Amino acid sequence: MRQRARDLGIRIGTADTGPANAITDVAGVRVGHTTIIRGDGPLRVGEGPVRTGVTVVLPHDGVLEDEPLYAGFHWLNGNGEITGTAWIHDGGMLTTLIGLTNTHSVGVVRDTLIDLERRGRGHGSWGLPVVGETWDGVLNDIDGGHVTAAHVREAYEAATRSGPGDAVAEGNVGGGTGMICHGFKGGIGTSSRVVEGGWTVGVLLQANHGRRERLTVDGVPVRIDDVPRPVAPAAEGAGSVIAIVATDAPLLPHQCRRLAQRAGLGIARTGGAGENFSGDGFLAFSTANRGRLPSDAPGTEPPRVFQVDVLADAYLDPLFHGVIEATEEAVVNALLAAETMTGRDGVTAYALDPDRLLEFVDRR
Amino acid sequence: MRQRARDLGIRIGTADTGPANAITDVAGVRVGHTTIIRGDGPLRVGEGPVRTGVTVVLPHDGVLEDEPLYAGFHWLNGNGEITGTAWIHDGGMLTTLIGLTNTHSVGVVRDTLIDLERRGRGHGSWGLPVVGETWDGVLNDIDGGHVTAAHVREAYEAATRSGPGDAVAEGNVGGGTGMICHGFKGGIGTSSRVVEGGWTVGVLLQANHGRRERLTVDGVPVRIDDVPRPVAPAAEGAGSVIAIVATDAPLLPHQCRRLAQRAGLGIARTGGAGENFSGDGFLAFSTANRGRLPSDAPGTEPPRVFQVDVLADAYLDPLFHGVIEATEEAVVNALLAAETMTGRDGVTAYALDPDRLLEFVDRR
Amino acid sequence: MRQRARDLGIRIGTADTGPANAITDVAGVRVGHTTIIRGDGPLRVGEGPVRTGVTVVLPHDGVLEDEPLYAGFHWLNGNGEITGTAWIHDGGMLTTLIGLTNTHSVGVVRDTLIDLERRGRGHGSWGLPVVGETWDGVLNDIDGGHVTAAHVREAYEAATRSGPGDAVAEGNVGGGTGMICHGFKGGIGTSSRVVEGGWTVGVLLQANHGRRERLTVDGVPVRIDDVPRPVAPAAEGAGSVIAIVATDAPLLPHQCRRLAQRAGLGIARTGGAGENFSGDGFLAFSTANRGRLPSDAPGTEPPRVFQVDVLADAYLDPLFHGVIEATEEAVVNALLAAETMTGRDGVTAYALDPDRLLEFVDRR
Amino acid sequence: MRQRARDLGIRIGTADTGPANAITDVAGVRVGHTTIIRGDGPLRVGEGPVRTGVTVVLPHDGVLEDEPLYAGFHWLNGNGEITGTAWIHDGGMLTTLIGLTNTHSVGVVRDTLIDLERRGRGHGSWGLPVVGETWDGVLNDIDGGHVTAAHVREAYEAATRSGPGDAVAEGNVGGGTGMICHGFKGGIGTSSRVVEGGWTVGVLLQANHGRRERLTVDGVPVRIDDVPRPVAPAAEGAGSVIAIVATDAPLLPHQCRRLAQRAGLGIARTGGAGENFSGDGFLAFSTANRGRLPSDAPGTEPPRVFQVDVLADAYLDPLFHGVIEATEEAVVNALLAAETMTGRDGVTAYALDPDRLLEFVDRR
Repeated sequence: MRQRARDLGIRIGTADTGPANAITDVAGVRVGHTTIIRGDGPLRVGEGPVRTGVTVVLPHDGVLEDEPLYAGFHWLNGNGEITGTAWIHDGGMLTTLIGLTNTHSVGVVRDTLIDLERRGRGHGSWGLPVVGETWDGVLNDIDGGHVTAAHVREAYEAATRSGPGDAVAEGNVGGGTGMICHGFKGGIGTSSRVVEGGWTVGVLLQANHGRRERLTVDGVPVRIDDVPRPVAPAAEGAGSVIAIVATDAPLLPHQCRRLAQRAGLGIARTGGAGENFSGDGFLAFSTANRGRLPSDAPGTEPPRVFQVDVLADAYLDPLFHGVIEATEEAVVNALLAAETMTGRDGVTAYALDPDRLLEFVDRR
Repeated sequence: MRQRARDLGIRIGTADTGPANAITDVAGVRVGHTTIIRGDGPLRVGEGPVRTGVTVVLPHDGVLEDEPLYAGFHWLNGNGEITGTAWIHDGGMLTTLIGLTNTHSVGVVRDTLIDLERRGRGHGSWGLPVVGETWDGVLNDIDGGHVTAAHVREAYEAATRSGPGDAVAEGNVGGGTGMICHGFKGGIGTSSRVVEGGWTVGVLLQANHGRRERLTVDGVPVRIDDVPRPVAPAAEGAGSVIAIVATDAPLLPHQCRRLAQRAGLGIARTGGAGENFSGDGFLAFSTANRGRLPSDAPGTEPPRVFQVDVLADAYLDPLFHGVIEATEEAVVNALLAAETMTGRDGVTAYALDPDRLLEFVDRR
Repeated sequence: MRQRARDLGIRIGTADTGPANAITDVAGVRVGHTTIIRGDGPLRVGEGPVRTGVTVVLPHDGVLEDEPLYAGFHWLNGNGEITGTAWIHDGGMLTTLIGLTNTHSVGVVRDTLIDLERRGRGHGSWGLPVVGETWDGVLNDIDGGHVTAAHVREAYEAATRSGPGDAVAEGNVGGGTGMICHGFKGGIGTSSRVVEGGWTVGVLLQANHGRRERLTVDGVPVRIDDVPRPVAPAAEGAGSVIAIVATDAPLLPHQCRRLAQRAGLGIARTGGAGENFSGDGFLAFSTANRGRLPSDAPGTEPPRVFQVDVLADAYLDPLFHGVIEATEEAVVNALLAAETMTGRDGVTAYALDPDRLLEFVDRR
Repeated sequence: MRQRARDLGIRIGTADTGPANAITDVAGVRVGHTTIIRGDGPLRVGEGPVRTGVTVVLPHDGVLEDEPLYAGFHWLNGNGEITGTAWIHDGGMLTTLIGLTNTHSVGVVRDTLIDLERRGRGHGSWGLPVVGETWDGVLNDIDGGHVTAAHVREAYEAATRSGPGDAVAEGNVGGGTGMICHGFKGGIGTSSRVVEGGWTVGVLLQANHGRRERLTVDGVPVRIDDVPRPVAPAAEGAGSVIAIVATDAPLLPHQCRRLAQRAGLGIARTGGAGENFSGDGFLAFSTANRGRLPSDAPGTEPPRVFQVDVLADAYLDPLFHGVIEATEEAVVNALLAAETMTGRDGVTAYALDPDRLLEFVDRR
């Protein structure tokens, strides 16, 4: 297991992390990965090499259709896909599981999540799952259709088997398997903050964005030019980053949306710019008020009026700062966890060497 | 007093109206107008003729800064101004009084509303008032700067003096004084609905929009071609309509925004299209939860977490239908209340003759 | 073949239709359907009965990735899915084919469209297809996964085989096969308008929305109570409608978005309200400027600056009116084309009887 | 004259600045300030002390109503006001001058800009001016109504008298006179970048935002704790920042909006978070295509179709990076230009001492 940013003495920002320094520090949130690595050599569409996967985030241990959560989203740059956002905009609610995968497998993940969530339930309701993507075609046979329903189920089951507060595997795992970030090997990264008032905010991201020459860690430009790049510098920034932000603070939908926008500020602080070819989209949800928001499932007859808790806006800033810091740290964690990977046509994405990083960034 | 749509037997939609069939049927909402009519003959900028005014809507009888309300807004067509919407979008709250006036007097109304709301309060807070406008330059010396702070205060005081559930003057009054609607004399109109669950929704609009040949009342095209028009047909549709939607149903900000969008459907049913030169903007607020949303005023230290009531989405449709119906009826009420007016340069906008209207629309 | 609205003498609005009175009147636009009808009797998930399908819209006869089009979208009510909108919002461009299907088959249609568009092209680019949905579970085994990649290809090939300006099959076809509209059998409907300046605007919709008691045709309430409904009245309005708006007028992205919003006004005029459980989403694109917008495909190096034609806003109103009228007529066409259908568990959705309709609506 | 960031050897980012390192490097853009400083001692509302002003930005040397420009905007946090944005959203055009002032004087600046732009023009058109604000009540008698129409005219005339490419006064001038930034004296700041392709992008901001303990300059946390603060730390971040972004690159409205969002990334890099009480709003416009976009002024009959130049999206990234860098540098320039100021009730906001800053930030 490679070291995380904190293990190296890199401390982003001022707030404390949660126990696992992961999105799973938000009570009830669990994460499962299916990692698909198969084959080597020249690309043969449909055969490989395969460097991809699926990550499933469970917002809580119940059925989301029965117990939806308030949520909001924001795009720093919209060259990407997160399905299911129309209802999050208008209804303000997350009513499904969350999936992350490669750009060309969004559909299979989406339809399978419906299947998983509806299993054993009667006919009559509908699902509008939230599935985000980034493009792993630099290393992966992305047109090969290698992600199947079975992989989605496997990630889902891995998530359900994990315990509360479990550490989250980072780097070359799940949807992040084949990703590239700031010209180094990227992938899944996570971090959390416990802020004033005792709320926890956690960020998990699938990091496939950024140019190498703009990478900034804790404010310091990191300039490593002698490590080969997997693509021409001109093509860097043509990735994407999806961030999932979870909190136990009781936020309404529009407050969640404000949190989501702050993930982009963390991306900016590590040198991202929401580049034109990048899909930088962020989803935030609040696990508070679980069980209070009525279900739309058929056969239910919700009470006409219900009550929810709301965090006063005056106390939002620590959460904003927490999201910025956790996003920044999650990018660094993704870079540090990812190991060098060679994919289709022998293309290699090199890991960020922690020792090289520490030549730039002071330990504190 | 001219007759309203219901007096003529025109019944829009299926839901019942409130007692006053006005926005003031929503408990606590009050309306005051200042009507400025002065001079005749050729336009002399700064001298007149003046055909304009100010309308002030009080969402409740307290101080909005202390007791904000959830709110949302929607533009069918954005060729207009409603100040104060950035915070309604991001904070979800209406924190000020509401003003309506002509396009070129928005500023003086806005600054005066701050003054009115801050009177006798300490230094330190800020105001971002909500002021909407439509353009009355067909009849009015709109560049003459005839609306003053005194007029705004007068409208405010008229509103504070009015009693709960009072009827609202319509037609050539307040901000609607010089307005034109579907080629006839327009102005202020209002209507309300009491819907399933006992909630009331009220709409007040300043109607200055629409082409004559597209006017539709209760689904019936109204084709009156022999009444002179105040402007060339080509210039019709170059007006605007601002609608204020109030309800006592407990709605969150995103639900208010959904209500606001439905005002545009009522405009559509009467023949509006959100024409290019029209500023068709709609603000909706919920008086429920008054006193629960914390104040941002200086010196206050709100509780970290508060509770609000929320209407389950499954019960929104009657409110949607109520907004559509009340908007449609408010347009007809504005047309019926407005009397023929001659303004600058002798331009005349003719009232819609109720008898002519009834040749088209069936009484029920 | 059942009669369309015009065949019955029902003429919505004032503008002329195009030759086919269909979205295909916009030069280059083609439509293909795969209709899947199989089995009868009780629902057995995975076995049927099946009443569903796929519709593919080709915006032009080239490759969209090479020749993207300006586009915009609008949600009247967001309880639905249209994938691919994040880039339409931020990039302003439609870069893919368009698919329509049932709610739980969006994924397979999406991934297959990528496959279809990338066939025979090199590795390296990405697809963010636009796929909309409505929910056909009243009649169809929607959880059964009956839509396959082969069905998508079949609809695509049907579209490519069709000729310019061909009529479009309506009613129980393609994505509209199992849909229900205003309590009658619904489905695919289309209409077009040729407006001032010679531009054509065409609308195609998958109509699954509306309550029976609110159906309005050409302004007239249609009240047919003695025909059985497929669902309880309370569940009506829990459908959705997706509209695709095409025009050859040279519009920029924000102008397309404005056109899209007007589709909702046509829905309103036929009695829709954007009900809470309805996903009423509209996509508009302009075929003008085809070939001028640069491709993002790998290996292309677009010119830094290109030129496009733009319609002056002052000429937008006829297009707005055209969209409203064509949307309204497309709803009526969908209702008239759809034939009575019995689906899962013997549930029957009855066609709107043209003779009954004409008892309400005057021929002109 | 105090030194700017570059004079001190602080070089933000990698792109070159324009000749004046100011928004005026974008050809045709000019800036004028009216600075109002009057009185000392205890606050007496209406008497002073006064520490405020007005800044007017002329996007070009013509009449904006005749020659509008494409524009877009973005809010990082919407606790503020920029009037005129509804039409920028829907019409995509900047059709007026731009004003900046204090929160409670937005109205007078708005109405006066209409007057200035309509002077000597016939009756019939309308103005929807763009006026942004930040709150200077820490130092200024903001409720005193000290900004008058005469002050707006003075700033406008100062702008018209300035020459092309002139330097822009920074710090305690114009709308920025009484502002506070990151706990130090703030105000107006500006910077520019010349990017790949030869385009210039310039940023001017009115900086009144940020907490002292989060100030970051060129990536380095600046921790100066021994200089008194004008307000309690808890109240820091309760400011706002308005940024005006100008470019000569030929951008469409949606591309301008994307540029505007990047200003927030520059704010993030200097330690801003779009705090809850902050109104962080950004307007971007493109001076290209001047004279091509048709006027809406009465009496004009624009051609139905016109042509515009458009920058291919593939070349946007350098502009994104330029906006981020110029915004970051403009914040530092505002801090360095502003001099220590004592305002109402003897409250003092201290300047950021350049020598202290250089203890943290390396010269390059």
